[in-house]
Amino acid sequence: METNRLEAFSDGVFAIIITIMVLEMKVPHGSDWSALQPVLPVFLSYVLSFIYVGIYWNNHHHLLKACPHVNAAILWSNLHLLFWLSLLPFVTGWMGENHFTTAPSALYGGVLLCSAGAYYLLQHRIIAAVGCDSKLARAIGPDFKGKLSPLFYALGILASLIEPWIGGGIYVLVAIMWFIPDRRIEHFIEDSHPRH
Amino acid sequence: METNRLEAFSDGVFAIIITIMVLEMKVPHGSDWSALQPVLPVFLSYVLSFIYVGIYWNNHHHLLKACPHVNAAILWSNLHLLFWLSLLPFVTGWMGENHFTTAPSALYGGVLLCSAGAYYLLQHRIIAAVGCDSKLARAIGPDFKGKLSPLFYALGILASLIEPWIGGGIYVLVAIMWFIPDRRIEHFIEDSHPRH
Amino acid sequence: METNRLEAFSDGVFAIIITIMVLEMKVPHGSDWSALQPVLPVFLSYVLSFIYVGIYWNNHHHLLKACPHVNAAILWSNLHLLFWLSLLPFVTGWMGENHFTTAPSALYGGVLLCSAGAYYLLQHRIIAAVGCDSKLARAIGPDFKGKLSPLFYALGILASLIEPWIGGGIYVLVAIMWFIPDRRIEHFIEDSHPRH
Amino acid sequence: METNRLEAFSDGVFAIIITIMVLEMKVPHGSDWSALQPVLPVFLSYVLSFIYVGIYWNNHHHLLKACPHVNAAILWSNLHLLFWLSLLPFVTGWMGENHFTTAPSALYGGVLLCSAGAYYLLQHRIIAAVGCDSKLARAIGPDFKGKLSPLFYALGILASLIEPWIGGGIYVLVAIMWFIPDRRIEHFIEDSHPRH
Repeated sequence: METNRLEAFSDGVFAIIITIMVLEMKVPHGSDWSALQPVLPVFLSYVLSFIYVGIYWNNHHHLLKACPHVNAAILWSNLHLLFWLSLLPFVTGWMGENHFTTAPSALYGGVLLCSAGAYYLLQHRIIAAVGCDSKLARAIGPDFKGKLSPLFYALGILASLIEPWIGGGIYVLVAIMWFIPDRRIEHFIEDSHPRH
Repeated sequence: METNRLEAFSDGVFAIIITIMVLEMKVPHGSDWSALQPVLPVFLSYVLSFIYVGIYWNNHHHLLKACPHVNAAILWSNLHLLFWLSLLPFVTGWMGENHFTTAPSALYGGVLLCSAGAYYLLQHRIIAAVGCDSKLARAIGPDFKGKLSPLFYALGILASLIEPWIGGGIYVLVAIMWFIPDRRIEHFIEDSHPRH
Repeated sequence: METNRLEAFSDGVFAIIITIMVLEMKVPHGSDWSALQPVLPVFLSYVLSFIYVGIYWNNHHHLLKACPHVNAAILWSNLHLLFWLSLLPFVTGWMGENHFTTAPSALYGGVLLCSAGAYYLLQHRIIAAVGCDSKLARAIGPDFKGKLSPLFYALGILASLIEPWIGGGIYVLVAIMWFIPDRRIEHFIEDSHPRH
Repeated sequence: METNRLEAFSDGVFAIIITIMVLEMKVPHGSDWSALQPVLPVFLSYVLSFIYVGIYWNNHHHLLKACPHVNAAILWSNLHLLFWLSLLPFVTGWMGENHFTTAPSALYGGVLLCSAGAYYLLQHRIIAAVGCDSKLARAIGPDFKGKLSPLFYALGILASLIEPWIGGGIYVLVAIMWFIPDRRIEHFIEDSHPRH
């Protein structure tokens, strides 16, 4: 089985998740600037989630490029990742509407943590299919970002239970850390497909 | 007519169905953990439907791979399947919001039964186009899973009318049965397209 | 400019229109069978619109297959068609929620009429690009169905103003007439691309 | 990294944005023609936004065709553009529901201004990747339309603060100016890929 239809389906889901989140920003009934005030926290949580989905799409793109063929384990690991990401619109709306209070911030971190775990599993399955001595495995290497993120998410969840804004701040920091795409995988792709 | 645009359109519909269901999980108004309690049954029904759409996408993927060209009968059979699957978000929301009571659980099973029938028809049309002596026809063979599922769905509908939770349990069991992709078709694809 | 990205974008819009309409079927609050009763007319109008979008996607598919390259006129004619089709979820919901009363039924026919006009324009632009002596132009030929549909839609609008159910019946009849795909264009495609 | 998956993802987002806006047109509860009256301004703002998304998709299409490979800067610039465009459904709904009053009209112009800036950045990144002496850079040339639009949007925002209908009129004028696709880039594409 080739990867193109898996990519097409995943692209569709990514595109819908990223766009559906904007529907949580309900059009306010008033027409003056102050009517926008209650929408502001929903907007901020939307920006954060937009960046996260962008990061996942970007990394997913690189990972799948290195995957020569798809087996059942990869296919279901991919659906598993998409499942956790599909919960982002819900937790984004809940966190935004409640102005980053305790429970919503902790649940947001929980969905990020599960998504990171699902991405790690997918990466693992693809390496298992490609081979442990493969360029991809070497390219990922120690994978500091991939290993640090879950720790930070767990820290963010704990911080949310004490002071939600600190939890939110940690999620922003992880996003900034990931904002720069994983050059290691990119280099691997460039080496194996020179000059396209 | 080639299959790629049929696949692209179907992928789009699958991706939207799987993502739109999450919109049935309305963001709760409260901000503490107890506010999530009414969302829990909607979440559970979402998980079940997500897995079902994943199974259908997976099997659809394998089936279309074996389909060399599309005729009008295949095209409309495919739209017929997508029609029944497009009703899943509605029945998922109804079943979840009513905590798996009688009528919603039975209707959920009804949509699963009609989807299974539509899938069977589509498979039949593709075999008719490919030929009864084809590798695909031999690969599907006795098709135990395909023949057992409608029986179990019918059983689930009946059970829902008496005790809805038993009906729900039967739908979960069928999902587990299908979770493992149909290796027979996969083998057929691998045999006919070795080493891609 | 090639047609593949125009097809991909159009497929996305078709897939979203066909799936978004199901959101007009609001999940009822009650949990017994009688709770479904108010949803029934919305369901019936959804079935009709699903078939119409399916017909348009099908014919669009055939038409674009015959289009070797896309110019600005074709691109905007295509967006024009998608605009009218994007109004279908709105008029479907309005017609369904008001049980096929006068104004909603007439407006539904109006959107069908405008969509038919937009399709005719798109077809015209593609023939202009391909050439009037082309196989496509000959394949479309007298185009009875394409010329009869607008007349029937106009008749349906008028009938809706007197007795809405007759208008609805006429829309169903046109759908049945179009249900069978335009074999003339299909034959043209098969002749020009034998045995794929 | 190739452009095809970036195009597919962007097409998905464009298709969803253009179709999701129609959901802001809430189905009215009444069933006579007067029930449509409050929907009319939402409809008009929908038409304007539909044309804008169509223009962006069109220009994006041409720009990406000239982009031989994608780097991280192009990828994030593209997501940045999609972010601003994803806010269009929200501001379209707010402007339409409030009958083109001051704050919504100014905010609508603000989103158009940010989208134009994001498009300019994306164009800049692609030229940086292709080379300043490239055909694309020469094809874009003085780029009058690209430079005039932000000025007009800023003018529209200011006009909205005084008399919102003038602001709306300016946005319509810019749409008309862009309605004709950028032939300079089109010519470049045609020169570099003759006769497809």
